Amino acid sequence: MEISNILVVSPMYKEIQSLLSEKGVKKNFRYLPDNQVTEQDLKWADALVAFNLKSLFDFRHVKWVHSLGAGVDRFLYEKNWPQNVLLTRTVCSFGQRIAEYCLSYILKDIQFHDQFQQDKCQKNWQPKTPGLLSEQKVMIFGTGEIGQTVAKIFSFLGVDVYGVSLSGKEKEFFTEVMAIANYEARLNEMDYIINTLPLTEKTAGLFDDSFFSRVSKAGFFNVGRGASLNEAAILQALENQQVRFAVLDVFTNEPLPKDSKLWEHPNVWITPHISAVTTPSEGVDCFIDTLRKIEENKSLTNKVDIDKGY
Amino acid sequence: MEISNILVVSPMYKEIQSLLSEKGVKKNFRYLPDNQVTEQDLKWADALVAFNLKSLFDFRHVKWVHSLGAGVDRFLYEKNWPQNVLLTRTVCSFGQRIAEYCLSYILKDIQFHDQFQQDKCQKNWQPKTPGLLSEQKVMIFGTGEIGQTVAKIFSFLGVDVYGVSLSGKEKEFFTEVMAIANYEARLNEMDYIINTLPLTEKTAGLFDDSFFSRVSKAGFFNVGRGASLNEAAILQALENQQVRFAVLDVFTNEPLPKDSKLWEHPNVWITPHISAVTTPSEGVDCFIDTLRKIEENKSLTNKVDIDKGY
Repeated sequence: MEISNILVVSPMYKEIQSLLSEKGVKKNFRYLPDNQVTEQDLKWADALVAFNLKSLFDFRHVKWVHSLGAGVDRFLYEKNWPQNVLLTRTVCSFGQRIAEYCLSYILKDIQFHDQFQQDKCQKNWQPKTPGLLSEQKVMIFGTGEIGQTVAKIFSFLGVDVYGVSLSGKEKEFFTEVMAIANYEARLNEMDYIINTLPLTEKTAGLFDDSFFSRVSKAGFFNVGRGASLNEAAILQALENQQVRFAVLDVFTNEPLPKDSKLWEHPNVWITPHISAVTTPSEGVDCFIDTLRKIEENKSLTNKVDIDKGY
Repeated sequence: MEISNILVVSPMYKEIQSLLSEKGVKKNFRYLPDNQVTEQDLKWADALVAFNLKSLFDFRHVKWVHSLGAGVDRFLYEKNWPQNVLLTRTVCSFGQRIAEYCLSYILKDIQFHDQFQQDKCQKNWQPKTPGLLSEQKVMIFGTGEIGQTVAKIFSFLGVDVYGVSLSGKEKEFFTEVMAIANYEARLNEMDYIINTLPLTEKTAGLFDDSFFSRVSKAGFFNVGRGASLNEAAILQALENQQVRFAVLDVFTNEPLPKDSKLWEHPNVWITPHISAVTTPSEGVDCFIDTLRKIEENKSLTNKVDIDKGY
């Protein structure tokens, strides 16, 4: 595939421009924010590089679209993708980042950070033995690049890691991988449940009342996509003690609206979609790497399967 | 060495008794709390098993003393140990426990737990990219069993780990090990500094004004012994921004006295000596293992070097 004209659409376009000049990529570039892209730009471009597109563009004349983020639901979810257009996504340090994010809140929990901080405020010396990671069972929804990196790091630390995927195919670093149809029997054993799944027709609303009715006193993490979690259901599950606490980085509507009850729940930790950011530098590195492979006709590990949606 | 009579001195002696009966160890046992031990008991015993002895006993007639904790300063620091008496200590999951303790506070720091919690209270959506463990430099004082396990776990997670020991001998999992005489040049590069050293004449008061004058905006962890840290010096270092925050699990006087200024400092995290507890079950397992090795004349990995003090 020959790529000459590249359209970069991003609110961070100036930073991306400066990084790409540094790397000396010899292509014709146009850098634009979302709201300045015209039909002419889209016809001119062989490739489009973008992060979170706010507008719906007509991609039919472009050969290749590269997403600077890992999630591509903005391009595919409830949309028709032109089958002849290649879609790739950034897969860099996401697994490591998400693993560290989740690990930080699991350790906060088993090391009793909040209890000890409260004791400190009262000058109260009250020993309590922290839990060990090797005593924890974690179920990870999604066993792809991200889920597997989380499993690798967690299993090295002694955590007993279970996976759930569409196929249920066994993968390294998981004690057991279950198909999405039959993981339910083990749900109540889990100390922590982590969603890393992409948003597709199959995962929208997956974590609902029926799901949480099988959960017992777990910590629930959503680092996948907001729309996979039913917000009313998680609030009810917290009420019922099925979920002890929730760590939420993604939401159906972002920023999370001020009137959401999640903000005020004492056992909900909210972070503003930061568990797996692409820094401009990482996004640019991944883009250059993908461009090189495309020009050398090498196989792509970050090509999106349009039917699967990730 | 022949061991028939074993004196177990501990406030937890009932739990230890029940664990030892379960394991079916065929020896003569006496179980006593500290304040009921008599001279006759000490003469009767071939071995003494104890955790934190409150009283000073005469160990000269005992062949072997086993410490249920990792630290043996209660037996050795500023005391004369009878050279013919074997001293062993529990070395079990301490390294793993201390690694998880330290990791929890490092991750809390780079994942901005406090900032996001404050934002949550104000319903404020303010993205900020967390740091990665692979961007952190950590210096660990002590490269023994505990320091090395911390280094193993941290280096696996991508942390750049430096060690400081008496000898400066290179060890696996450390980028570099420096002798205690010449680590100072690198101190100001460190993001986090962790003390795991035992309390000996060489380490008492090691972390003083002169030490902190070379530190720049680091997180300081004390999981070794309280008396290695000068409390006035750490408060001054916090004031000077040499130390950004301190995580302290051990103190010169425990429980930490109510009038200590550490309690009220906003950037000091206090935990009540829980980073490396021995659960009774772990202590008993290590004791039985050591007993078996002694009776089979096997070499001991947990024998204390009386001159070194650990």
